[in-house]
Amino acid sequence: MAYNLKVGKLLHDTNQAGYPMDTNQTRRIAVIDLGSNTTRLIIMETRLGFSYRLVDEVREVTRLRQGLTSQGLSKKAIARGLSTLRLYMDFCKQTKVDQVLATATSAVRDAANGPAFLKRIKKELGLSIQLLDGDKEAYYDTLGALNEVELQQGVVLDIGGGSIQLSQVKNRSFTKGVSLPLGALALTDLFITSDPLSNKEFEKINQEITRQLETINWLSEKKKEPLVGLGGTIRNLALIEATRQKYPLHTQHGFILKRSSVAKSIKIFRELPLDKRQIIPGLSSDRADIILPGAMVLLAVMDRLKAKSLELSVNGLREGVFLELFWSHLDPPIIPSVKHFSVLNLARNYNYEKEHANHVSFLAGRLFEQLTPLHDLGAKERDMLYAAALLHDLGRIIGYTSHHKHSQTLLEYNGIPGYTPRETALIALLCRYHRKGRPVISDYKLLLNKKDQIILQRLSSILRVAECLERGRNANVTDVIATWDKENLRLTLIATQYPAVELWQTARNAGPLLSIAFEKEISLDSFSPPLNSA
Amino acid sequence: MAYNLKVGKLLHDTNQAGYPMDTNQTRRIAVIDLGSNTTRLIIMETRLGFSYRLVDEVREVTRLRQGLTSQGLSKKAIARGLSTLRLYMDFCKQTKVDQVLATATSAVRDAANGPAFLKRIKKELGLSIQLLDGDKEAYYDTLGALNEVELQQGVVLDIGGGSIQLSQVKNRSFTKGVSLPLGALALTDLFITSDPLSNKEFEKINQEITRQLETINWLSEKKKEPLVGLGGTIRNLALIEATRQKYPLHTQHGFILKRSSVAKSIKIFRELPLDKRQIIPGLSSDRADIILPGAMVLLAVMDRLKAKSLELSVNGLREGVFLELFWSHLDPPIIPSVKHFSVLNLARNYNYEKEHANHVSFLAGRLFEQLTPLHDLGAKERDMLYAAALLHDLGRIIGYTSHHKHSQTLLEYNGIPGYTPRETALIALLCRYHRKGRPVISDYKLLLNKKDQIILQRLSSILRVAECLERGRNANVTDVIATWDKENLRLTLIATQYPAVELWQTARNAGPLLSIAFEKEISLDSFSPPLNSA
Repeated sequence: MAYNLKVGKLLHDTNQAGYPMDTNQTRRIAVIDLGSNTTRLIIMETRLGFSYRLVDEVREVTRLRQGLTSQGLSKKAIARGLSTLRLYMDFCKQTKVDQVLATATSAVRDAANGPAFLKRIKKELGLSIQLLDGDKEAYYDTLGALNEVELQQGVVLDIGGGSIQLSQVKNRSFTKGVSLPLGALALTDLFITSDPLSNKEFEKINQEITRQLETINWLSEKKKEPLVGLGGTIRNLALIEATRQKYPLHTQHGFILKRSSVAKSIKIFRELPLDKRQIIPGLSSDRADIILPGAMVLLAVMDRLKAKSLELSVNGLREGVFLELFWSHLDPPIIPSVKHFSVLNLARNYNYEKEHANHVSFLAGRLFEQLTPLHDLGAKERDMLYAAALLHDLGRIIGYTSHHKHSQTLLEYNGIPGYTPRETALIALLCRYHRKGRPVISDYKLLLNKKDQIILQRLSSILRVAECLERGRNANVTDVIATWDKENLRLTLIATQYPAVELWQTARNAGPLLSIAFEKEISLDSFSPPLNSA
Repeated sequence: MAYNLKVGKLLHDTNQAGYPMDTNQTRRIAVIDLGSNTTRLIIMETRLGFSYRLVDEVREVTRLRQGLTSQGLSKKAIARGLSTLRLYMDFCKQTKVDQVLATATSAVRDAANGPAFLKRIKKELGLSIQLLDGDKEAYYDTLGALNEVELQQGVVLDIGGGSIQLSQVKNRSFTKGVSLPLGALALTDLFITSDPLSNKEFEKINQEITRQLETINWLSEKKKEPLVGLGGTIRNLALIEATRQKYPLHTQHGFILKRSSVAKSIKIFRELPLDKRQIIPGLSSDRADIILPGAMVLLAVMDRLKAKSLELSVNGLREGVFLELFWSHLDPPIIPSVKHFSVLNLARNYNYEKEHANHVSFLAGRLFEQLTPLHDLGAKERDMLYAAALLHDLGRIIGYTSHHKHSQTLLEYNGIPGYTPRETALIALLCRYHRKGRPVISDYKLLLNKKDQIILQRLSSILRVAECLERGRNANVTDVIATWDKENLRLTLIATQYPAVELWQTARNAGPLLSIAFEKEISLDSFSPPLNSA
């Protein structure tokens, strides 16, 4: 899809013609977010427009909302807020943060003395905090979400402590958004006195939710469009479901949370008192008091949209604030293709060996193209092979021995936004088996099936050949030609110098797997063009 | 113990008074080792005298010994050797290796045309290979072993493909060593024609082993002294045993292999034909053909020394060659205390945040000292706490989210040479639980017991308090004073600025665990000395 650039062009590893952003120094950018329940600090280590990763996170339960009256924030809440921000500013100073971006939302937004509080913070700590109105908060939520999920059109929902935000997305852009006082903590404070929740209070909460949602006239136009969810309540509901399923990945990127799961959780929450809710597997014990109203809001929104499921965005407001700076050379600051950048971002963060990875990727691609009549795989499989070619050695940052397993682990924890959980699992297995062993899907039985076993075998064999051909890290093998008949598959290596070791390595370590995957006898030979030809 | 320094003094993080080695650039040092069966390349990334880690390894089954006659190495073997070394030199050039150290041992050593072969390598590839005699090979083995195992006195045994090496260690130094033609591959070539091994051939091999071992007159003097084992055969026997036991660590550092296990393995190997041996869990399938004679040599040596067990050294000849350069400012090039350097090496390799780690270590140490009358733990526990204080955040290199689990994983794979497996498991758990959660020993039930559960709880609670006190990464809390009576334990934080957040964090996240560990009510207060006092 087309995107607007404010200045320059989008940077790719292969197009690094001296574009200024490429030589950026690594910076540490902090984002502080002053919410109703918690105040959070995240620190991103980044080369703007090139790569970023979370390197620190501090979360204080500041409870700004506690004791909020018509006069505004209570004295104690203000004192807690100031202490927390003072500590965060110290932290940033000590850890050499280059820039601090700070926002405040519900609680401060709703408080009569909110602006005065922010003035005081500016005066005493030198910290400028951007007070976000509802539309702006929804905007940043959506910025975070669209940079993680390949959403073209739909709705983004954030269920927070003080408020919820609903945003409309069209053509992969934020078009409008609104904030409603339906946060999990706010509803708890307003309505909940019984534990477990009484039927009467349950009904009152649902009535309030319905009443508030009805004020959004555009919501009904978005029926059946994709829904993306973020924020603590939704992340927790997803983790509860993941735990129930024994979900085999540790990342929540791309997780699909079904309406039926939310309904089931609500039923459970209604039956259990607080101390029993606190031990529900997957639920943070310090969210157990407010999870039920949060889940009720989610179910109500899903029902209004007739959404059978939502896709999780791990990114939220904080990431959105950061990404506005990170992608500031794009307009809007949203990467057109999430999956492509995710792979490069991971590779760059873990110091991949670019020449080696690119050459393996090239050779694997050549084999994939040529063998298409035999394997019959398409663009999505091509993309998985590309990701594995770039990422298979990342695990070396943990240790060289068993680095194939470490690469798998890295992907299980980081995820690859833009790739589905099933694709992520396959890529993790491609990394696991890039050197040796018999590729099997058993680590991710929940996500993969027999067809995937065949895909895994075919892609693994191609990747393994490419890896063997690049054994010398010297691009000695510049191309590989595949020819075949009914019984035999021949690979001809085009090499600068006679590739003795590449030939025996490929025969020993990749040949058997290739033979099984393509059901042919494998033979190898080579051709070294004379030196004086181009 | 005393050690001799050739120049300068041993470098510690805390004594960095401008010692030149401290500012070394990172270098890549390759070690190539031309053996009977395999040719190996390892690349160490290192700041000499400061830190090192394995970053690449290539192993080619060159089989130099194959076709060896009285004329020397066969033509084919020489061609394979040259191709392999050519690839390795290319690899080193492409990956910007700064220095290549190369050695050749049995096969080349035994071959009439050995020296000519090395001359040809020098001429064609520009690579100088050091041909090691038996004593020198034993020396490098021992150098590798002593830099991993805290051995003062005993025997080091390396069982290789072509030969074995036995070394005498006294006062943590190599005193003498010898090489015998009892390598696993050599014995297989000489004696084995049947599969499974016939009783007759079994006897012949044992007779040869006895005959050869009897030529070492000093072996019997070392009865009952500690035995350290290295080399492929021993590593495989250890892995077979670890798999049997379901050993919970992925590292083999410090693994204790019992004589009874070796005897049991020999019995199994004698009964199974090759294809069944190849699938024994823990055994490399390409070693299955030669493992039995290798195991027989080990058993014979253990029986001569009346050794009930040996300690594994993952380090071998290649590491010894590297470490001679790494520790070249020490004489001999052996670190006096392995465990202390292991911790620093790991910390440095994974870019630990030195100020933070050191301050947490300091505060944890203050608590440990003061609370000694209550916890009654000693120097070994103090050392575990120190290691955990320095290493608990290493996992952040994998990802910030769940970094406590990543730290645990890093230690499970890397190990901490000098610490026993039990201690390594405890340190891994201290890292796992440094932030939150209820510390339990269940991940390592095989290595830990009920007493360790108590030790874990006490050390965890101390580390967690220290971590909470350093929440601002600003050394705001400069000391902590512990006082108690029968019922209560009070911690007084000495802080530069009033430590509001540190107090509530410690109360919430560390207080409960401390209370359980020390069976007292916890109270916290603070004291900020006036600014104009020192």
